[in-house]
Amino acid sequence: MDLNKLKERAEQYLDEMTAIRRHLHRHPELSYQEKETTRYILDKLDELGIPADRPLETGCVGVLEGERGGDRVIALRADIDALPITEEGEHKKGFLSENEGVAHCCGHDGHTANLLGAAHILSGLKSEIEGTVLFIFQPGEETLPGGGRLLCESGYLQEKGVDVIYGLHSNPNWTPGKIALRKGELMARPDEFEIEIIGRGGHAASPHETVDPIVMAAQVVQQIQTIVSRSVNPTEHAVVTVGKMSGGSAYNIIPEKVELMGTVRTFSAETAELIKRRLEEIVKGVTEAGGGRYEFAFNYGYPAVRNTDWATDIVVRTAGELLGEENVEQMDAPLMAGEDFAFYQQHFPGVFFFLGSGTEKSGSVYSWHHPKYNIDEDCFVTGAALMASLVFQPLPADEE
Amino acid sequence: MDLNKLKERAEQYLDEMTAIRRHLHRHPELSYQEKETTRYILDKLDELGIPADRPLETGCVGVLEGERGGDRVIALRADIDALPITEEGEHKKGFLSENEGVAHCCGHDGHTANLLGAAHILSGLKSEIEGTVLFIFQPGEETLPGGGRLLCESGYLQEKGVDVIYGLHSNPNWTPGKIALRKGELMARPDEFEIEIIGRGGHAASPHETVDPIVMAAQVVQQIQTIVSRSVNPTEHAVVTVGKMSGGSAYNIIPEKVELMGTVRTFSAETAELIKRRLEEIVKGVTEAGGGRYEFAFNYGYPAVRNTDWATDIVVRTAGELLGEENVEQMDAPLMAGEDFAFYQQHFPGVFFFLGSGTEKSGSVYSWHHPKYNIDEDCFVTGAALMASLVFQPLPADEE
Amino acid sequence: MDLNKLKERAEQYLDEMTAIRRHLHRHPELSYQEKETTRYILDKLDELGIPADRPLETGCVGVLEGERGGDRVIALRADIDALPITEEGEHKKGFLSENEGVAHCCGHDGHTANLLGAAHILSGLKSEIEGTVLFIFQPGEETLPGGGRLLCESGYLQEKGVDVIYGLHSNPNWTPGKIALRKGELMARPDEFEIEIIGRGGHAASPHETVDPIVMAAQVVQQIQTIVSRSVNPTEHAVVTVGKMSGGSAYNIIPEKVELMGTVRTFSAETAELIKRRLEEIVKGVTEAGGGRYEFAFNYGYPAVRNTDWATDIVVRTAGELLGEENVEQMDAPLMAGEDFAFYQQHFPGVFFFLGSGTEKSGSVYSWHHPKYNIDEDCFVTGAALMASLVFQPLPADEE
Amino acid sequence: MDLNKLKERAEQYLDEMTAIRRHLHRHPELSYQEKETTRYILDKLDELGIPADRPLETGCVGVLEGERGGDRVIALRADIDALPITEEGEHKKGFLSENEGVAHCCGHDGHTANLLGAAHILSGLKSEIEGTVLFIFQPGEETLPGGGRLLCESGYLQEKGVDVIYGLHSNPNWTPGKIALRKGELMARPDEFEIEIIGRGGHAASPHETVDPIVMAAQVVQQIQTIVSRSVNPTEHAVVTVGKMSGGSAYNIIPEKVELMGTVRTFSAETAELIKRRLEEIVKGVTEAGGGRYEFAFNYGYPAVRNTDWATDIVVRTAGELLGEENVEQMDAPLMAGEDFAFYQQHFPGVFFFLGSGTEKSGSVYSWHHPKYNIDEDCFVTGAALMASLVFQPLPADEE
Repeated sequence: MDLNKLKERAEQYLDEMTAIRRHLHRHPELSYQEKETTRYILDKLDELGIPADRPLETGCVGVLEGERGGDRVIALRADIDALPITEEGEHKKGFLSENEGVAHCCGHDGHTANLLGAAHILSGLKSEIEGTVLFIFQPGEETLPGGGRLLCESGYLQEKGVDVIYGLHSNPNWTPGKIALRKGELMARPDEFEIEIIGRGGHAASPHETVDPIVMAAQVVQQIQTIVSRSVNPTEHAVVTVGKMSGGSAYNIIPEKVELMGTVRTFSAETAELIKRRLEEIVKGVTEAGGGRYEFAFNYGYPAVRNTDWATDIVVRTAGELLGEENVEQMDAPLMAGEDFAFYQQHFPGVFFFLGSGTEKSGSVYSWHHPKYNIDEDCFVTGAALMASLVFQPLPADEE
Repeated sequence: MDLNKLKERAEQYLDEMTAIRRHLHRHPELSYQEKETTRYILDKLDELGIPADRPLETGCVGVLEGERGGDRVIALRADIDALPITEEGEHKKGFLSENEGVAHCCGHDGHTANLLGAAHILSGLKSEIEGTVLFIFQPGEETLPGGGRLLCESGYLQEKGVDVIYGLHSNPNWTPGKIALRKGELMARPDEFEIEIIGRGGHAASPHETVDPIVMAAQVVQQIQTIVSRSVNPTEHAVVTVGKMSGGSAYNIIPEKVELMGTVRTFSAETAELIKRRLEEIVKGVTEAGGGRYEFAFNYGYPAVRNTDWATDIVVRTAGELLGEENVEQMDAPLMAGEDFAFYQQHFPGVFFFLGSGTEKSGSVYSWHHPKYNIDEDCFVTGAALMASLVFQPLPADEE
Repeated sequence: MDLNKLKERAEQYLDEMTAIRRHLHRHPELSYQEKETTRYILDKLDELGIPADRPLETGCVGVLEGERGGDRVIALRADIDALPITEEGEHKKGFLSENEGVAHCCGHDGHTANLLGAAHILSGLKSEIEGTVLFIFQPGEETLPGGGRLLCESGYLQEKGVDVIYGLHSNPNWTPGKIALRKGELMARPDEFEIEIIGRGGHAASPHETVDPIVMAAQVVQQIQTIVSRSVNPTEHAVVTVGKMSGGSAYNIIPEKVELMGTVRTFSAETAELIKRRLEEIVKGVTEAGGGRYEFAFNYGYPAVRNTDWATDIVVRTAGELLGEENVEQMDAPLMAGEDFAFYQQHFPGVFFFLGSGTEKSGSVYSWHHPKYNIDEDCFVTGAALMASLVFQPLPADEE
Repeated sequence: MDLNKLKERAEQYLDEMTAIRRHLHRHPELSYQEKETTRYILDKLDELGIPADRPLETGCVGVLEGERGGDRVIALRADIDALPITEEGEHKKGFLSENEGVAHCCGHDGHTANLLGAAHILSGLKSEIEGTVLFIFQPGEETLPGGGRLLCESGYLQEKGVDVIYGLHSNPNWTPGKIALRKGELMARPDEFEIEIIGRGGHAASPHETVDPIVMAAQVVQQIQTIVSRSVNPTEHAVVTVGKMSGGSAYNIIPEKVELMGTVRTFSAETAELIKRRLEEIVKGVTEAGGGRYEFAFNYGYPAVRNTDWATDIVVRTAGELLGEENVEQMDAPLMAGEDFAFYQQHFPGVFFFLGSGTEKSGSVYSWHHPKYNIDEDCFVTGAALMASLVFQPLPADEE
């Protein structure tokens, strides 16, 4: 397949993808509530002549059978849900969210438009396609348990026999026309914790008759810093952040308890378990030393996104051919953010990569989840062409 | 004056005082909003033939002129405001607060009833009274700036030429029939502080791109402990309590700032200033070390309650005669709680004392401001009789 | 007895007392090693015709029998040991310590000279003395277990039937001619603690393979601050100081353990026990949280010096008559330093007071244990006269 | 070149290398004092007919000119200094250090023996060698400024025109016959810091008259934990360890100051500078908050060892051929320990790798700098053969 031809088609469909993205941007829906979004995608797939399955309540999977035979199955994935954020930003004038308090501030609208663009390209090339292409429009990426997990648990993809899965995320750190990725660890495993430090409240003037949970909570927050600084192997990457600390309501009352909430980022279940254990040991030690009690909960989130070596080689080579090698950055280090794409990689070879989407002119300089998050829609050309191109690459199994 | 006669009258008026107290208990009013309470007191004074002045918007001062001549002026003070607390407690059945979210949980209903009882006693003994007796029903004891301060600032009492002022507070640590007090320091100086620890918020997975205010706040809370442990002279009494610590709203976001609120208890302006200075030095040092900023406010509260030596001798001697010496406890140490009675003592000789009000049978075992706070109404006999008795005691000026 | 006569004699003996003090100053001896000092005192007592007992190995007790009969026994106490300090200071030229590394930097040389002065005065007034006067020259005040404790445990004083005991300490905060004291708590109870924070040492570059005792020790020091700030009743006086913190020897090795040593100052065994308990709870909690272990020892020191009310009244009245009331300061607050005079007060009524000894001209401006500590020898007039005067005061038993 | 032939020769010379190593082990010399060691090496090179240069006072460089012409220069480096450690260990019986307090506990004796073995092999193959081989016997690896730095600063190697340099370190984590390495970051940049926290000393019972440096030092140690946990990018590797904390000498004296010493491990000058800045900000902020002062020194150590990609490929390929691919471990993560080999890599392409040297039978299970550190001498076969083999590999320049 001449990749330039795919790129030309992507350029040709840019206006269409832009229109789709803006429509979705105006009508964002929260995780697992993507009903209208799903209906809209189904209509688009129908226009392209691509039948769709609905293995989950929301979202859908377009199934394009190539006409060249073969049983290989290549999955391309987009996520479709929006965030509970009140949008801001002049650069999105004309297509701002019409759903109060909900907005596509993580670019999933673009991911969806991009994948529909790839579907459009590929639907016109069926005669050249081997095996099956799955267009996964996944719900609930932003919210536990994760639409990716649900889809994997449904068994749908296993039944289809996916050989490899590709996904992307718009990223303002690179400009349109570029992508970035790395082998192995790409994005972190995010877990969450909740701690209650329970003392014995009382009058602020009589601390000796109380057990002060504010002082204990302060000690806990300080000691938590030693988990990364002392307990985790310094050649691993880890973050432990207390994001919320809340206790008390008055100047002159020592409260009964303080609530702490936070997140843990690692790249392995072992390190996550080590941190979980250290967290509880610290909370236990501090509250015992202080005469208090505690509640501790640790909620497991997504695994780490870990790109398959051989599939990464395919993306690097294909993107190098399509975009020029200078536009394919192989990252030195992973990101500490998480992605539920990781669930697919528990089951299938897969690659997740970042699609450059940042330019000053489009105001796409804000990071994920920022109320002003935006993308330069020019990125769709690269995204759709690359996704389409990957469908035509030989897999290791082919080479044997 | 035969003090037993005064005590008999107090016993005789116990039902009346109890009825007054229960009426007030059912109709509590917040600080500076004591309109109905004031009207009720004015009616009662009127019934007793005691004219009243109204130097402030709420509260009033009954003025009883003795018939024995002389220009001495003795002031007896009660406070009349209630608290923003939702009341609890079976022992107050039949007279629970009818004003949702407001309750007499600090016994001011009793103080008022008690002082009206003393007024009743004294109104029947005008022929034996020298000089003038002022019955001060003061508003706003619970809330800054303090009704006592306002009254002193009005100049009303200065104009009257008060020679000495007496006040009391019900206290469940002693039983009815007993009082407790000490010379000099009796109750602490309560000041308040508010601190904002300001960092730079961001994604919980990228702490290096933020300035984490939660970690800085924890450091501040820990270092604040050193003010009492290291900076204050250990032979002084001081408390610094952080009563509220609040920042952040999510697992995975480092917030922009954390709010701390607390109270400082001391017995001198010098120590309060030392603590204020240390607080700000700590907040400044920690935020500079951490790369953040801060806001710091210190709100001066009431002075310390400091009983005049000679007037305390009068109360001790009088109470000893009235109640038996074994029922007059001279306390070893002061309390760290505060009282706006302290303002009067900035201008006039004065004594504040604790009126035993605690018994199991009445359920009066909870501390001040507890939703179940109650008093054993038998304490009114002691309170009213002692207040009345103090009016008849010679003052140092008399002895010259 | 005309106190002025006693004062005149004291003035007359000032040179003699000064000579004694300077002799002792040149020949200081450490606690329990006061052999030459004892011999010197025995010689002086012998010159005065006062027989002496030797209930302990060092030190002695002069026994002066009055000729007026009666069985009252009044004890006057001085301490005689010196400190392991290398002396400094130009104001002591001509009588600097000749014993390398040992010096009278706590004024015990002066206390001894002063008491020998009182003995001289009283030895000439036997005919006017009732009962017995004991001149206690006590060894080992500076070092546990305390010579005072040993003397009390010997039973000697109990056998003599001491009615009251008086002691003094030179104090640069007041000038000669003045004394200071207070009823009840005068000086604190000093206890000591030793803590070992035991981790697991290793390479500084591999903290995750170690248990870092330096970080745990830092947490312990910080949490110890909460004992005084939160756990001790704020109306009591207490100090917890870590005086030594020591661990590690190299930049790049995490040590096995850190040693902490410190002192606790309180005014009651209950509070000392509370602090002991809190110290161990903190050390236990921190080391459990951190994965380490600990050793904890708490060494009980002297009790608090607590002056008997009636005996204090005697000293105040007598000193007022002798020195003028303006020269007798009744202190507001106690000192946090300790004194083994406290042991006597466990058995007998007693008063300890401070003898003003500070003037610029004599360089006596440094605090106890400072290498430049000095006294203005004029203070001996006041000290000797007051000690002698106390012998002539009626005791409560006399008044019955 | 048939690598098996090289391996056979290495096996043949094993006893010789073992004898050299044991001789050196018995006669260890500290950094920059390696006089006898240098003389010994010079004798051995002389026996092999390899002339030597002496660009530094100690150490030397053997220069073997190949007979195949060409101007390529390949450098092989060993370090020769010992440590100030008192040796322990039964497995080294018969060749224990004869130099009291000095010992080869970091394996440099073995590195030297190994390189002399490679020199022996190569000296017999001159006719097959292209260009020049440098055998660098470097002094002072263990001690700043680093013999590698001095050699680079001397200009000697630049003059020779080194094309690539190889070095190795014995490592008990792998067995003889194996090597381990990775591209890029292999070993960390170690820097050192010294901090003095200066307060104002005084009596332990009067903390309010002092500025307690022990409390400030504890705060500093705790806040230092936040450098790695909050300030350093979590996708980088960094360690900040306080290895020594020392202040005070007595229970009852608050000392004047506390000394802290420690090490910083990073992989870039930027991160080292960030940590240096944060360290001083913390010390400054804490001492300002506490009313004290500080001294701060930061001593730059070695750079990070960072292996050149293409040269690493050469080592991996050559070792794979020589040892079998399964015996060449490509490490996932670097070590946080440091090496002055890094200085060479500032100037020339270079690779440092770990030579497996650990077996139970030889007791070589202790880590670097442990008093019982030992190596299984079988590792010399692998080390000498691999070093010799690298000399025969084509360089990228050759391929052009």
